[in-house]
Amino acid sequence: MTQANVSDAAELDTQAELERLRREFGTQLIDAGLLIPTGIDGLYGRSGEFEAIIDGIDSVVAAQAASAYDVAPRVMRFPPVFPRTNFEKTDYIASFPNLTGAISTFTGDNKAHRALLADREDGVDWDGHLVSAGTMLVSAACHPTYAGLSGVLEEPVLLDVYGFCFRHEPSEDPARMQAFRMHEYVYVGTAEGARAHRDAWVQRGMAVLDALGLDATAVAANDPFFGRAGRMLVANQLSEDLKTELVVPLYGGLGEPTAIVSANCHQEHFGENFAITTADGEVAHSACVGFGMERIALAMLRTHGLSRKDWPASVLAAVGLSAS
Amino acid sequence: MTQANVSDAAELDTQAELERLRREFGTQLIDAGLLIPTGIDGLYGRSGEFEAIIDGIDSVVAAQAASAYDVAPRVMRFPPVFPRTNFEKTDYIASFPNLTGAISTFTGDNKAHRALLADREDGVDWDGHLVSAGTMLVSAACHPTYAGLSGVLEEPVLLDVYGFCFRHEPSEDPARMQAFRMHEYVYVGTAEGARAHRDAWVQRGMAVLDALGLDATAVAANDPFFGRAGRMLVANQLSEDLKTELVVPLYGGLGEPTAIVSANCHQEHFGENFAITTADGEVAHSACVGFGMERIALAMLRTHGLSRKDWPASVLAAVGLSAS
Repeated sequence: MTQANVSDAAELDTQAELERLRREFGTQLIDAGLLIPTGIDGLYGRSGEFEAIIDGIDSVVAAQAASAYDVAPRVMRFPPVFPRTNFEKTDYIASFPNLTGAISTFTGDNKAHRALLADREDGVDWDGHLVSAGTMLVSAACHPTYAGLSGVLEEPVLLDVYGFCFRHEPSEDPARMQAFRMHEYVYVGTAEGARAHRDAWVQRGMAVLDALGLDATAVAANDPFFGRAGRMLVANQLSEDLKTELVVPLYGGLGEPTAIVSANCHQEHFGENFAITTADGEVAHSACVGFGMERIALAMLRTHGLSRKDWPASVLAAVGLSAS
Repeated sequence: MTQANVSDAAELDTQAELERLRREFGTQLIDAGLLIPTGIDGLYGRSGEFEAIIDGIDSVVAAQAASAYDVAPRVMRFPPVFPRTNFEKTDYIASFPNLTGAISTFTGDNKAHRALLADREDGVDWDGHLVSAGTMLVSAACHPTYAGLSGVLEEPVLLDVYGFCFRHEPSEDPARMQAFRMHEYVYVGTAEGARAHRDAWVQRGMAVLDALGLDATAVAANDPFFGRAGRMLVANQLSEDLKTELVVPLYGGLGEPTAIVSANCHQEHFGENFAITTADGEVAHSACVGFGMERIALAMLRTHGLSRKDWPASVLAAVGLSAS
């Protein structure tokens, strides 16, 4: 074997072992009753125990926010669908078309319905009988917030947003779900304020993960922008230092560690597209931190064990749970 | 005017007044900061105050369940999307096609993406570039549960399910949302057990609404089955006494009172379609009660006032909230 061949073979072994570990973790979570399979990769039901862990994690996140602000950020909770007109302004379909979820519905009459049912009876795909419902699945918790901010901001805005997000990326890795919750703190205001928000939340995010007993590292990162045109966006995001992820290794040293918190500067992207300006007439900058709730829960289950009785007392105390 | 004309005119006046009251209530909720408009009828953000009311209501619902059962129902929490293969087995597309939400996504390459973006640039609908994502929005909280029950049940199953539901029926009535939460208790087992579950939860539901200070009535009801074929299903549902709704008048005597809790016998519908049988080999029957969380909150805001400080002390105590 040449040296290159040896290295390729090692790479393939690593990839195969990583995939095995991911499948094994998924099976363990299902066997422990924490996740409920639905028959589709990345879509799971959650048990009461899993939800208790999520709520415990969220209490640590919320406490961090409470200690950071004199005036609490404005709480906004959106359902998992939002208007396509607002989705369009995020430009998500240009950057992440492959992750998108568009919603369609049936608006026809009896005759059209019979035609749909006839196709269904014949085992033919019946999507052709549907039309756009004018809505999209929410891809990032903050996306539905910006439309309401259009206009002039008298002062910077701080938002507390929490909800289900959808990304179509079926995977056997339980940490890559198609539907998951994100708790975000969003800032909209000046360029300096946005940068400061992002930087402060990198530190606060690290404090949250430390309290949860997770061995996290803050790394410069980029979004998985689609296609050839996306490469320029990746390069810009990295060179401008716009995205920091807090990552935790889930499978030992194998593969990339998993991002469980993400802190992002959007520059003027949302300010421009949603026509938001600051009091001095500048296009607003924005920034957000997103806590990936399911991923944090999975990192805890992977790090501390699948059963709460094995967790360190300090971690149990942090999330307000007992060992039994 | 003939008598019929007078009656028609009165009917029209009533309808116009009802629509005015619904719009007015919607505006009041938005002005009070409880709901956040998104630009689409029936899709709203929720404030922290609205969410506190929802959580307070849910504590009363959960306490009712806790007092009803020695062994707690199994908690299952599903995301707002679930596999189309399981949706198909509910037959929802046959009965309620107009309420359905199908999810599509983009799976093409760079070239196909450029074609999508070109259509978008030209202001042309780009849905034609998408394909089914293999998933549907959840229409009723219990729908994702049945697939996991296929097979023989050793004993009846009791489930506690809570999640976002989607129904495409845009309306200015704030009580008719496109995305809303439903907390369900589901029984799957014998025919007698299913009937008893439904009947018991009609009483428990009335007790919950009584604690919330709502003047509810239990009425025989039917689902809004689609089209001509649906009329037979309506007739069957009524003659077999399969659906009971707990209704509250939101707009005085105008229009139909609003259903805020629904208790349903499904007979063998889900048992048959999901191949669930009881220990003695019979096709399983099922029943559920669904608490419409947003509708209950709206009924409380309409009945007790938009501001918590005006609410009766007994109601505040029931939901665990203070007047300020």
